[in-house]
Amino acid sequence: MSRVETGAAGRAQPLAGEPLARGCVVGASGFAGALAAAIMWNHPRVSLEAVTARTEAGRRLDDLYPRHRVPLELEPFDADRLASAADVALVSYPHGAAAEAVAALRARGMRVVDLSADFRLADPVLHERWYGPRGAPGLVDEAVFGLTELHRGEVAAASLVANPGCYSTAAILALAPLAREGLIGDAVVDAKSGVSGAGRGASERTHFVAVDENVSPYAVEGHRHAPEVDQELAALGSGARVTFVPHLLPLDQGLLASCYVTPTRELGAADVAALFADAYAGEPFIELAAGPPGVRDVRDTNICRIHASALPDGRVVVFAAIDNLWKGAAGQAVQNLNVMLGADESEGLR
Amino acid sequence: MSRVETGAAGRAQPLAGEPLARGCVVGASGFAGALAAAIMWNHPRVSLEAVTARTEAGRRLDDLYPRHRVPLELEPFDADRLASAADVALVSYPHGAAAEAVAALRARGMRVVDLSADFRLADPVLHERWYGPRGAPGLVDEAVFGLTELHRGEVAAASLVANPGCYSTAAILALAPLAREGLIGDAVVDAKSGVSGAGRGASERTHFVAVDENVSPYAVEGHRHAPEVDQELAALGSGARVTFVPHLLPLDQGLLASCYVTPTRELGAADVAALFADAYAGEPFIELAAGPPGVRDVRDTNICRIHASALPDGRVVVFAAIDNLWKGAAGQAVQNLNVMLGADESEGLR
Amino acid sequence: MSRVETGAAGRAQPLAGEPLARGCVVGASGFAGALAAAIMWNHPRVSLEAVTARTEAGRRLDDLYPRHRVPLELEPFDADRLASAADVALVSYPHGAAAEAVAALRARGMRVVDLSADFRLADPVLHERWYGPRGAPGLVDEAVFGLTELHRGEVAAASLVANPGCYSTAAILALAPLAREGLIGDAVVDAKSGVSGAGRGASERTHFVAVDENVSPYAVEGHRHAPEVDQELAALGSGARVTFVPHLLPLDQGLLASCYVTPTRELGAADVAALFADAYAGEPFIELAAGPPGVRDVRDTNICRIHASALPDGRVVVFAAIDNLWKGAAGQAVQNLNVMLGADESEGLR
Amino acid sequence: MSRVETGAAGRAQPLAGEPLARGCVVGASGFAGALAAAIMWNHPRVSLEAVTARTEAGRRLDDLYPRHRVPLELEPFDADRLASAADVALVSYPHGAAAEAVAALRARGMRVVDLSADFRLADPVLHERWYGPRGAPGLVDEAVFGLTELHRGEVAAASLVANPGCYSTAAILALAPLAREGLIGDAVVDAKSGVSGAGRGASERTHFVAVDENVSPYAVEGHRHAPEVDQELAALGSGARVTFVPHLLPLDQGLLASCYVTPTRELGAADVAALFADAYAGEPFIELAAGPPGVRDVRDTNICRIHASALPDGRVVVFAAIDNLWKGAAGQAVQNLNVMLGADESEGLR
Repeated sequence: MSRVETGAAGRAQPLAGEPLARGCVVGASGFAGALAAAIMWNHPRVSLEAVTARTEAGRRLDDLYPRHRVPLELEPFDADRLASAADVALVSYPHGAAAEAVAALRARGMRVVDLSADFRLADPVLHERWYGPRGAPGLVDEAVFGLTELHRGEVAAASLVANPGCYSTAAILALAPLAREGLIGDAVVDAKSGVSGAGRGASERTHFVAVDENVSPYAVEGHRHAPEVDQELAALGSGARVTFVPHLLPLDQGLLASCYVTPTRELGAADVAALFADAYAGEPFIELAAGPPGVRDVRDTNICRIHASALPDGRVVVFAAIDNLWKGAAGQAVQNLNVMLGADESEGLR
Repeated sequence: MSRVETGAAGRAQPLAGEPLARGCVVGASGFAGALAAAIMWNHPRVSLEAVTARTEAGRRLDDLYPRHRVPLELEPFDADRLASAADVALVSYPHGAAAEAVAALRARGMRVVDLSADFRLADPVLHERWYGPRGAPGLVDEAVFGLTELHRGEVAAASLVANPGCYSTAAILALAPLAREGLIGDAVVDAKSGVSGAGRGASERTHFVAVDENVSPYAVEGHRHAPEVDQELAALGSGARVTFVPHLLPLDQGLLASCYVTPTRELGAADVAALFADAYAGEPFIELAAGPPGVRDVRDTNICRIHASALPDGRVVVFAAIDNLWKGAAGQAVQNLNVMLGADESEGLR
Repeated sequence: MSRVETGAAGRAQPLAGEPLARGCVVGASGFAGALAAAIMWNHPRVSLEAVTARTEAGRRLDDLYPRHRVPLELEPFDADRLASAADVALVSYPHGAAAEAVAALRARGMRVVDLSADFRLADPVLHERWYGPRGAPGLVDEAVFGLTELHRGEVAAASLVANPGCYSTAAILALAPLAREGLIGDAVVDAKSGVSGAGRGASERTHFVAVDENVSPYAVEGHRHAPEVDQELAALGSGARVTFVPHLLPLDQGLLASCYVTPTRELGAADVAALFADAYAGEPFIELAAGPPGVRDVRDTNICRIHASALPDGRVVVFAAIDNLWKGAAGQAVQNLNVMLGADESEGLR
Repeated sequence: MSRVETGAAGRAQPLAGEPLARGCVVGASGFAGALAAAIMWNHPRVSLEAVTARTEAGRRLDDLYPRHRVPLELEPFDADRLASAADVALVSYPHGAAAEAVAALRARGMRVVDLSADFRLADPVLHERWYGPRGAPGLVDEAVFGLTELHRGEVAAASLVANPGCYSTAAILALAPLAREGLIGDAVVDAKSGVSGAGRGASERTHFVAVDENVSPYAVEGHRHAPEVDQELAALGSGARVTFVPHLLPLDQGLLASCYVTPTRELGAADVAALFADAYAGEPFIELAAGPPGVRDVRDTNICRIHASALPDGRVVVFAAIDNLWKGAAGQAVQNLNVMLGADESEGLR
């Protein structure tokens, strides 16, 4: 319908730099997968060799997402073809559907960043409770939880990275500096997300009229990203109870995690500031702001913008804003890919 | 500019019922005042005799707010003229400016509902800390805090009602049933409001481009509505610390208070349900919902829609949704007026 | 999920006035049908006896649309049951599906307002071109095109009213005063609609992310409402060519028709003003505004707000704003019902 | 308030390529000026040496616009200082205020792209009618109207470029291929713009609550961009009357011009397609789309996406979508700067 007629939509986008790897995106018809393809298409040193889709194969990606301007045709999934065309893959299938594709690509020696939840939770019991039986369970041991700032070393060596959920990314980045020091007695995470976080599937819930002029909590009794937060805080030595409640907002991209922490000991403004400055010194995608962040500040970027402070009533509040499709999904996936390839972490992401 | 030419925009809107009182709105050019005027204009038994404005006098209200269709001209404030034309007044001036007008109207025997914060906080020290010196301090003793559901009896007898803030209304209604039973150990209120809550004044903060595709916390170090919540919970016997943080959302009308309570004793789902059912049985403007409320559910109504539940982790969560201009301001003002006049509380509000 | 627990959700809403008729809404799960049910539920003299739905039967309407607060259960369609419970019906089925239901109700003697397009186009060839074969073709002769302001007399006597499309309503009301005098040489109607006009069905097109921060034309080669405009202008004696192009906007309710007319003779500002003032004198739902209307001015009302003027370059422009769900669908349906029942046209609509 | 503490916000952003020129932005606190600064800050071969502001001097640009991440302090305007620091300037002052600054910079030998309207209209009578007396009238003869696609050669040689208005850019690009061939008998341009087009000034009109859920025409009697369209079409040999009416939409960035042309002779689909393909072959920022464009497709890009077709009724319709801040202002300014400097036109704009 909206095929562009100007310009030759060739297969090859010449790389601006020295080739690093040949890549592909499996599941490029969803919001995150399509953005992953767009980022890779413009990456100076990773070429985009193929994009696949389960239901939209045959359609061109720039027809489905004109704004991304990736002039490739979506292919059906074919592991052999992908393994011959590319060295690395970003997999952006729904939970449950990803494991099998990941296994097929790993079996052919490709390094993979998986954007689904299939390999995020190390604990098989926990995984089964939230998602049902895990496909390709043998792979979970080699999977590294890809919150880059926390696991950079492991990611560099990994063959399979489990890219974190969007809510988890913001919440963990907000809480990690406190958790690492055992400072979280108790925490409430009130999270707010734009609609793209709910995916491209059309439903009663993502209909414009349902979201517009509205805000409402959902999954109050428990959201799938909560155990990711627990897992990572526990790994940092914190056993704190975290109450996590997401809300849906009338905006497309953007996620704010408002975190209310009862600290285990009194913390002053200077303590909090120092803690975060130390934790994130030199991080290319963490911004520490002197005032509360807005999601508009990070729209279409891979940045997590954080403001932490100690309130007069003793509570410590931390606000973390990300773009759920970038740092919360496709951007962080490429960040991880860069780390895996030994490249500058921010290549293709600025 | 948009003066409507069809129909005779006469002064008198015939009442549908037996006259109850003659009313006026002081400060009808702001969002809340204009809505108060519109509600009174359509009230079956209270006539709207005059509308005033400080800076827009001479302009017609239906020119300023076509959608409200109130064909009256805004007058400058004249206490004598108002006292001769009307029996009751809704005052919707900014904080600080209201006290003097209220005093002038009270001195002439009019019964007043004041939508400003000038008489909300009984404690003079607290008032001064948040708002500076109080005008007409002698009136504070006769002022009743107009959260109707909590103070119906006092409102009925009052000559001066201090209408609560929008955030306070939602937060207090959400927490009162727990506070009354001493069940709140500690609470976080993460509140989310549409832009009309920031008033009609054009500013960098209310510019469309600043709000659109954005969400951000503000007044993190302390918001003026917090002491209203503390005052009311204390009056119910609760000394609980409440951390209150407001957020600005890209919508016009609507306010959601997400309340996270650490209870003083374990509460099950049935306990929580019973507590709220008892507290709000028969209330015409409280809706207890089986699932999380959205602000869209209460748009343009005086209803507070509440959902309370006990989480598996022991926390009790309560979500309260209101329209900040209705139950959070003008609607509750008329609700209070109805109570003062001995009318059915919901007259003119359905 | 969101069943409200407070208050007894009984079957009967007591009428405020003398009973006029017993009504029902067939197809109450869509946006227009649900609003029609809500308006009827609150109508002072028409009772709402039943609501039906094809796919959501068994669900409560206030569960599907909490904001409408109609505590009835959706029933499967049963013509006998409806004919015994009600005298009149509003049918809000999709095009093609409505005809059969209408026929069944008419066969049982009920008077019907049909919100679909099944009986709008008198010309069978034209109908078939745009919609395919017409169901119940025998009924088309008794159907009256329900643009109330143009066909009030016929509507009063009708047993079957074909309620106009939303775009047609705005465009025809904007152009009729000029068409009637043979003043339209040529016209462009650039129409802009909120998303509720696309219906409740979830699709790629109504997904929040597709509409947000967007505006785009659609159906450029021809939209189904265009022949309704042509039919009605021709009935007024105008043979003018009208180019009609709709656009989708990021808002929920509201429709603006911007009409650019090349007049057949020079018209001055006073001519245009007089023409519209004469045409719509005394109309309860037409507002002639001195400046350009915004759809916000008519949100949640049955009003069509019109501004017409003669430009210096000789063109005549007419802007008509309606709420597509009210005057563009459910509101006008009840307006027609009131006329059919001999009631005040605005009963239940103010 | 939101000063970022991480990272050293140094003065110099190292260039990625061979230096081409040193630049500055005069009036960088408005929406267009700030974006111009951001684009220049990231330009691989033009360095950003200074940013100025009339009222916000002393504030940091990344405090005012966190999302642009330009860590420079806004300076007061000082022509000598700018002339010593930079070779070229983008001036983004309001109409009327720009001329004097432009004159001061030109007097010091700097090449200037002026984003205001001060030098757009060649005809002094016309300029005075729309804007009042022109400042620095002596400069108008050297000014080139900077619609790059139409005046590339002149721009390359120019010392002063008058960057077109946002509406003019879209309308002229939509109509030029037809105008050049004398094919426009008559045209209606119904234009729709996001709120950033109204500038950063807070007003009743740009308040979120005024725009949200709204759409309305404005400046119906005549908009300042209309004479720019007339001037350029006349320069192409077309004397056609163009009726131009802008509308304000609830979105931040984006502009759609819907153009309805009565052609001077019958045109088929293939004629129209060929005309546009020829006119824009090889243009880096023109996209010809097979279907109607949405403004979302061009958000945050310098692209003008066009769809032209011949309707069955003989009318030719052309839709042109741009981002009003990019191709409609700052993006096109840098495009012109690139042309002036002999660089690739799209440097820093992809």
